[in-house]
Parts: sequence; C-alpha cells; structure tokens
Amino acid sequence: MSKTAPVDSARMFRNALGSFATGVTVITARAADGADVGVTANSFNSVSLDPPMILWSIGKNSSSLAAFMQAENFVVHILATDQEALSGRFAKSGTDKFAGIEVERGQGDVPMLKGCAARFQCRTAFRHEAGDHYIIVGEVSDFDHDDHAPLAFHGGRYGMFVRNDPAVPGQAPAEEALLSELLVRAEDGLIRQIEDELSEAEISLPEFEVLRSVSDSVLNVEELEEMAGPGLDTTILVLVEDLAERGYLDAPKGGPITLTEEGEAALQGVTLDIESIEQAALSTLSPHEVALFRRFLAKIVHSFEDEAEG
Amino acid sequence: MSKTAPVDSARMFRNALGSFATGVTVITARAADGADVGVTANSFNSVSLDPPMILWSIGKNSSSLAAFMQAENFVVHILATDQEALSGRFAKSGTDKFAGIEVERGQGDVPMLKGCAARFQCRTAFRHEAGDHYIIVGEVSDFDHDDHAPLAFHGGRYGMFVRNDPAVPGQAPAEEALLSELLVRAEDGLIRQIEDELSEAEISLPEFEVLRSVSDSVLNVEELEEMAGPGLDTTILVLVEDLAERGYLDAPKGGPITLTEEGEAALQGVTLDIESIEQAALSTLSPHEVALFRRFLAKIVHSFEDEAEG
Repeated sequence: MSKTAPVDSARMFRNALGSFATGVTVITARAADGADVGVTANSFNSVSLDPPMILWSIGKNSSSLAAFMQAENFVVHILATDQEALSGRFAKSGTDKFAGIEVERGQGDVPMLKGCAARFQCRTAFRHEAGDHYIIVGEVSDFDHDDHAPLAFHGGRYGMFVRNDPAVPGQAPAEEALLSELLVRAEDGLIRQIEDELSEAEISLPEFEVLRSVSDSVLNVEELEEMAGPGLDTTILVLVEDLAERGYLDAPKGGPITLTEEGEAALQGVTLDIESIEQAALSTLSPHEVALFRRFLAKIVHSFEDEAEG
Repeated sequence: MSKTAPVDSARMFRNALGSFATGVTVITARAADGADVGVTANSFNSVSLDPPMILWSIGKNSSSLAAFMQAENFVVHILATDQEALSGRFAKSGTDKFAGIEVERGQGDVPMLKGCAARFQCRTAFRHEAGDHYIIVGEVSDFDHDDHAPLAFHGGRYGMFVRNDPAVPGQAPAEEALLSELLVRAEDGLIRQIEDELSEAEISLPEFEVLRSVSDSVLNVEELEEMAGPGLDTTILVLVEDLAERGYLDAPKGGPITLTEEGEAALQGVTLDIESIEQAALSTLSPHEVALFRRFLAKIVHSFEDEAEG
C-alpha cells in the first residue's frame, strides 16, 4: 500500500471510499407540502432479511433533508445501466427534478420512476445521526425488480458490472496465446462462415464490401478506390463493373455509384445473414459484454488510425 | 417491471437486492480472548465525511457477532479483483480463517490483510439494531488505499467494474459497424504492423507461425501440415526446409522438428517485438479491459470450435 495517512483530507478519504464499487439509487418521497422530492445516493445497502430492511444515508446539508426526516414512506430505485442521466438529474439541486418524467405512485403517493433494475417501497423504521449524515433505515413493504443490467459507480465514474467467468475450457490457452493469434483465429472463423453464407448468395466478400460502402456514402469509382487503398484500386473497377452488369449497381462514368433496388435487396439479405452469424458467434456473451467487445475493437482500430496520423 | 409482489419470500427479496452492485469487504477485529476474527460483507458503505465514518451490518447469527459487539476497533478491507478467494474464505465459518495468511497489525492489534484496494481502521462509534442484523458505524482513524482494481459483486456473482467511456471519436461508428468489419479492421491493422516488424527480422508471418508451433509442441512435418489444414500442407514443407537451411530448425526426415539455438533466439526476438506492438494497440485499455478482451476473443474462437464439433 503506497499511501498511508491520518485522516486529514476529505478528498483522500473520498478517494479511498471510491475503491468500493456500488450501484446507484434514486430515493424518492413526498414532502409535507405534497411536493415530490428525490435524491441520488450510492450509500444504499441491505440490512435485514427478516423483516426485510434496507438503509441509506442522507447528508445534513441536503435540500431534501427536511422531507426525508418527516417522510413515513420512501422508495429506493436501483438504476439500470441506461439511467445515468437520471442519476445526474437527481444529484443536482435547484431544478425541478421530476419535470417531464412520467411517474407511478406508490404507498403514501410517493413518486416511482420507471425502467429501473429494482424498486423498494419502504416505511421509515429508524433514523440515526452519524456525523454529517443521517442513516435512514426502511422496512420494505413491497418491491419489484427486472433483469435490467444495473448502473455501477466506482472511483467517481459510472460503469457496468462484468461478471467473472467460472473456469471454462478454452480460457486458459487464451491467457497464453498472443493477442494477435486470438484475433486472427476469431477473424478467420467468422470470415469463413460469412464467406460460406455469401457464396450461397453468389456475392464475394469484396463485392459485399463494395455494396456496403456504396450504401453508406455517396461515392464514385475513384473515391471507392481511394477507400480501398493502394493495390486494390484496379480490382475495384472490375468489381463495380461486374456488380453493375448483374443489376446491383448504377455506375455512370465519373458519377456517383448507387445501389439499384435489386442491389439494396441483395445487400439487406446478406447483411441479415451476417448479423445472425455474428450473433451465433457471440451467443456466450451477454449484451453488455458484446457492447464492451465492440468498444474494445473500436479502440484498437482507432489506435492504428492515430498511429497513421501521428 | 414484470415481478411485483408483497414481501413474502426472502429469496425474491434477496434477488431484488442483488440488483444493486457492490464491492466486497472483509472486516476484521480481535475478540475479547485475543483471537482474530473476520467476516466477509458487502453491506459496507460510507456515511460521513466530517468526521469520516463508515458503516456495515452483521447478522445476529454470525459466529463473529460477539466479537464485533464488544470490539473497540475493527478494520474494513475493500478487496481487489484478485482476492475472490479471500472473500470465500472469510464468508465460511468453522475454519481458521487466518491460517497461512500473513497479516499486519493495526490499532488495537486488529489483523490487517494485504493486497487490498483500500483499508479503513475504525473505532466503533455506534451499534444499531435493525431486524436480524446490527448496523455497525465506525469512525475512521486511519486508512490507506492502492490503485488495485476492486472486486465487485452483483446478482450473487463476483465480477469487475468496467467504466463507461465518455463519448470518444470512433465510438459512434463502432455501434453501427458490423462486428466482422471491426474485427477485420483490428486484425488487418495489427497484422500489418506485425508483418512490418517481421520483415525487418527477415521472417515471414507463416515462417513465424511455424517457429511458434514447433516451439510449443513436439511435431514432425506431417503433424505440422495437419495443424495448418488442407491447402497449406505443401507450403509447410517448403517453409520448414527453408527455415532449416537458415539454421533456425533441425528437421530430420520423419523425426520431430526442433528449434536450434539460433531459431530460439530469433523467435524470442520477434515475439517480444510483437508483444510490444500489441501493447501499443491496447494502450487505451486498462489491464482488466485487456483481460476481458482476450476472454471475449477466446469465447468467440471457442464458439467456432463448438460449431465444428457439433
């Protein structure tokens, strides 16, 4: 451990606390005057199973303190990964936090947010003073939960939870192999299946790439050749002429290449096929892991582009 | 939300609570008789910054309850990702949890574990009964923390926290691109750099692969050809003969192919070069993200092998 210190700095303490990953909750109640209140808190935790109880802490300087100090009921919302904006909204004071948000009403008319990973309707059981906060313990009277992946928070950053795998066959070698070998094997396996699928549609992989490029952007032959890079530029012309002959492309000399209706249909058909091949290859990953995998690949691709520019 | 229910089942309540991701802590103290005690808890959280206070809960049926109900001092350890085993050890009772573990001693001679993401030395400030647990509030008298990635827990599974990226250039396209396109671009970029590096060492990519295969396992030419698969088998013989001529391989007819000392040195040199290319490509990923990326790639490779077998 590198940094040992007596508690002299709130910032250092906060940083150390940040080592503990948490979920993110929004806790709502109804003030004495009937106004809806809500705060973002990551100080939530379970306390008791029988009776079911949870706790969280609220700062003494919170603008919602008074409401929570008298509220008989409150609702804890465990936020889902796509609710980062909601966390931000309820963390800021001085605005109408509920503006434009559709809510349901729980016990005691407490506003309840939608789309959360879980919600706990609570009756306030105890309030304990602790330093500059109050600990609020609630007895859970009702709850619901959904399989939304939860938003996570760690070191002052939002993120997500990725579970560790139990040891699986094929994992140990992955640790040893060169990354490039893994990448080549993954790419080979995927491309081989895609080529099989494409050959049934009588479209080659380069032809597919031309169709996709033309579908994405307005290009003429020269621009297409430039995208393909040196070495492939002569091939492109042949591919384009061949695809035009087969009725997939309109390719007027010097003008922009466009997909014909037939070309559009062919592209759509094989794209769907490829997506289902990809889905099968990724079937052991969760949707969030797939998103992460894409992100990592994009970063690697990006690093080469930076290299090329720099 | 699909499942709404009054609180009638501890299991459903536990599942709903599982929606909240947490870190994992081990909390240690010294019993009245001088014995070291420790429990695993994910009910830890921060409470107050000024004075610095934290809390956690202990079950009334915990075998360590008596020790913590009288302990003046305790230490909270936030576990790092590689301390899953420690979490398991301190979650089980009936064994000597500290057997074979080297500890330091904190205030009040409390045992302190090493290699954690953070540690908080606390004086017990309050104990509050709450259902089947006691909430223990500690005032933090000292703490240290390290940049170890923390162990995370969610839905009954260990895992890790992966932070969300702020929007970065190159990320938006990643969402749209076909996965196979990203994979091809990443592989192309990496292989191009590796080939550049290899060409300086006057070793081709297929030659490198032969050197690596022979270094990993004892193979003769036929076995090597089999690994390479149909189509490449004739090439392999040429590669092996060429590498033998250059003094990198001993390849007796029919016998096992072995690396010469020179071949070993050449392989080691280019492997180091390739690893540094890979490191550069992965430099925007954290070590944990790299480990995840490898895991995902291995799963994809594995999915093709399953396909081939099934």
